[in-house]
Amino acid sequence: MIFDDVVKNAVESTPGAVAALIMGSDGIAISNYVKPEADLEMEVVGVEYAGLLGELQRVSDILQSGGVRELTVTTDRFVIVIRRVTSEYFLALALAPNGNIGKGRFMLRVQSPRVLKELQM
Amino acid sequence: MIFDDVVKNAVESTPGAVAALIMGSDGIAISNYVKPEADLEMEVVGVEYAGLLGELQRVSDILQSGGVRELTVTTDRFVIVIRRVTSEYFLALALAPNGNIGKGRFMLRVQSPRVLKELQM
Repeated sequence: MIFDDVVKNAVESTPGAVAALIMGSDGIAISNYVKPEADLEMEVVGVEYAGLLGELQRVSDILQSGGVRELTVTTDRFVIVIRRVTSEYFLALALAPNGNIGKGRFMLRVQSPRVLKELQM
Repeated sequence: MIFDDVVKNAVESTPGAVAALIMGSDGIAISNYVKPEADLEMEVVGVEYAGLLGELQRVSDILQSGGVRELTVTTDRFVIVIRRVTSEYFLALALAPNGNIGKGRFMLRVQSPRVLKELQM
């Protein structure tokens, strides 16, 4: 299963990553992978960020700044990287604050076309 | 003037950066520097992101993820990097999509303590 492979691969290939998911803008996840030691509910994270992505696109429209491609948020406890695959689906990765954010962004960027291809089948 | 120096320095030291500002969460800018060739209204960007930062902190509170430190948004036309200085003030930098985001984030991180010190005087 490509979707499961993508989220597992994104987490296992990124130092400090703890969870990843593929989710629709309606907050329903297609695939979800969370390391056993991870202290976060990745689906809840996804649902909240799905709403935020909609808000962010609204802001981007106001600013005539085009489509939102990527979002990285650093908080005290986690770094969340979101990459839009289509207007309907996104990839999300959660890392520890000292995780390799650059590698995480890279992983989502390279996995995104695989997800897109599968979504279009 | 430290604030003006910080925003000018952040833009001029970051390849691809076009504008920077220091703003309060009420949407009122302390300082603003925009390159003449930049095709964006940085104050409007700041005001919209000020609202979004509040929303993001609300989400972070729900997820018990702590304070929001930094936010990077990549859209078709711009990359916006936001760094919180205090709960009341933030630094924002706008770059072209091919700009050096890593350098931009670094510049905001190193300039942030200078802004903080000045705000506390």
